[in-house]
Amino acid sequence: MADQDAQSPAGIEPPALPVLRWDEPPEGAVLVLLDQTRLPAEEVDLVCTDVPALVRAIQNLAVRGAPLLGIAGGYGVALAAVRGYDVAEAAEMLERARPTAVNLGYGVRRTAGAYWAAVEKGAGPQGAAAAALAEARALHREDAEASGRMARYGLALLEELLPGGAHRLLTHCNTGALVSGGEGTAFAVALGAHRQGRLRRLWVDETRPLLQGARLTAYEAARHGMAYSLLTDNAAGSLFAAGEVDAVLIGADRIAADGSVANKVGSYPLAVLAKYHHVPFIVVAPTTTVDLDTVDGTSIIVEQRSGREVTEVTSSRTASVDGGGGGVVVAPLGTVAYNPAFDITPPELITAIVTEEGVVSPVTGVGLAELCARSSQVTIS
Amino acid sequence: MADQDAQSPAGIEPPALPVLRWDEPPEGAVLVLLDQTRLPAEEVDLVCTDVPALVRAIQNLAVRGAPLLGIAGGYGVALAAVRGYDVAEAAEMLERARPTAVNLGYGVRRTAGAYWAAVEKGAGPQGAAAAALAEARALHREDAEASGRMARYGLALLEELLPGGAHRLLTHCNTGALVSGGEGTAFAVALGAHRQGRLRRLWVDETRPLLQGARLTAYEAARHGMAYSLLTDNAAGSLFAAGEVDAVLIGADRIAADGSVANKVGSYPLAVLAKYHHVPFIVVAPTTTVDLDTVDGTSIIVEQRSGREVTEVTSSRTASVDGGGGGVVVAPLGTVAYNPAFDITPPELITAIVTEEGVVSPVTGVGLAELCARSSQVTIS
Repeated sequence: MADQDAQSPAGIEPPALPVLRWDEPPEGAVLVLLDQTRLPAEEVDLVCTDVPALVRAIQNLAVRGAPLLGIAGGYGVALAAVRGYDVAEAAEMLERARPTAVNLGYGVRRTAGAYWAAVEKGAGPQGAAAAALAEARALHREDAEASGRMARYGLALLEELLPGGAHRLLTHCNTGALVSGGEGTAFAVALGAHRQGRLRRLWVDETRPLLQGARLTAYEAARHGMAYSLLTDNAAGSLFAAGEVDAVLIGADRIAADGSVANKVGSYPLAVLAKYHHVPFIVVAPTTTVDLDTVDGTSIIVEQRSGREVTEVTSSRTASVDGGGGGVVVAPLGTVAYNPAFDITPPELITAIVTEEGVVSPVTGVGLAELCARSSQVTIS
Repeated sequence: MADQDAQSPAGIEPPALPVLRWDEPPEGAVLVLLDQTRLPAEEVDLVCTDVPALVRAIQNLAVRGAPLLGIAGGYGVALAAVRGYDVAEAAEMLERARPTAVNLGYGVRRTAGAYWAAVEKGAGPQGAAAAALAEARALHREDAEASGRMARYGLALLEELLPGGAHRLLTHCNTGALVSGGEGTAFAVALGAHRQGRLRRLWVDETRPLLQGARLTAYEAARHGMAYSLLTDNAAGSLFAAGEVDAVLIGADRIAADGSVANKVGSYPLAVLAKYHHVPFIVVAPTTTVDLDTVDGTSIIVEQRSGREVTEVTSSRTASVDGGGGGVVVAPLGTVAYNPAFDITPPELITAIVTEEGVVSPVTGVGLAELCARSSQVTIS
């Protein structure tokens, strides 16, 4: 477990990832996504000209990650509006594309709200579409800013919990620039530590079944020259037992009013391990991820995905755009698989929730509600 | 999490798996192994004519699992003796093939011991080789018997801990007929429950990196018509949280004198989860897996395997006999991976250790030593 590879100098910054952009070529407006199913092997653009294409991209995880889903949902509504499709229908399709990440619905409702408000004020279709697009762009910009603020709050929290630096941080799934308008959530904190020379090692869970850790977090860590090591999800226990983890940093897909956190499956076992080993377990997410209408963890709907994600291993090389397998079969034919996309971590296992508005620690419903009230975000009815 | 697929009738038994057999064709004695790297796609024999070939098969995991490694090691010594190779050198090569499973060394030393005892008694090379082969066969037979006894003790323990049946058992890695002269260790207990109509579901961890759960345990469960579901290792936490796991059953690669258990990486996190959820965590292993010379868990050498097992996913279809990759690349080039083959579970997290000589519960060094003393196994100097 020696740090075999020297840490790269922190000064060299790679160009920003072209994760998602609005474009207006002569043929009409499009939403261009970096197809995350093809990473790390290829950086391929996926051009969405309508909402059904975007919905497929969301369901196939070509675009993914709670904050980015909010941004994509927002631009999706704008795309429908600008291209003259039925905005109400588009919003409904987008909201239903995936059930767990609350940000998706937030982005859709906020942008659709701006559209309908403009219509009510007497704007024509073009004016209302412009209002929707402006709202999506505002959401995109706010998310980038939120990312920077989460990183600063997270770094301050790490310094408080683990004074002196040389952090060995463990993370799960992917929470970097690929999920965000900015540099991400949990990953942005680790990246901040790296830039300050305070990251000794980033332990990257591979994150089965879709290997977002191996494919995406390792890719982002390598781009930034961070000292990282990949591990199978089940090897994290050995690291805890060996005292090699100073803190766990993860993102969130939905945070209930009581502070229960839905995040990528595998987060909850890490929280139990962290508790057992007295290691801080830190959730980093924007306040748009908090859903005060969801009372507690048991009320969160957890998406169950196809068993083929487990019985077949799909790499970036074998992934097909329609998400329909094409992977390497690893289990006997006819094998039934249990494949929840997320799990729920209760507040008593979470040391702190870091948002762009500040930190809640210990995690309580009251503390969370206060932070959300502080948030300057547009209120959605 | 409903039991979607009906449990098959327990009465239909598949033929025994041709896991390992000694054969004497006209060209000379051979050890024939079922190549486990090719399962479940193909049932392919791997014919070893000498010890270097067997060592490669052990290192590539074509033959694997603690008890079976002991048997293979025993036959390996016999193979060298029968074919007239240097027995001392062969024994040394075999013992060093993999460091963690104590059974390998046990089988090798026991068979070599029989060889040298015969030599000392004046037997010629043929007589000594026959003694070695007889010892390997005895070890093979004893292991099959031990498997049946472990299953009976394990079933009685389950009935005591979880009266009434309808067990939902979670297992990790592969511990069935593919690791044993009989029907295995932990898997044999689940199979026994199935035969008695007391198994509601076998939850099968896929067991990254080499997917022995997906490839081998699912294959064995399907052969027996057991009600099983496959899951990614990190999804076990959701099952515990939902109250869907009644007990965890795993095998062991080495048990230290204090009751610490080295087993496939991912066992320790399950033990922590089981403790947190008050679910019994049961280790099933023959007394040959107990190493009273290893004082405690910290003294167990844990094999670190190639990072390519993590950065590339190798299915049975892409596996190459030389073990040298050939997998699907899932991480950026140059990614360093942390890849321990095993982890250590301390006795305080283990509800019971089930052996062919009985059950130790609570797990204490004294209890374990008593069971080992009861064992009728040949003592090795």
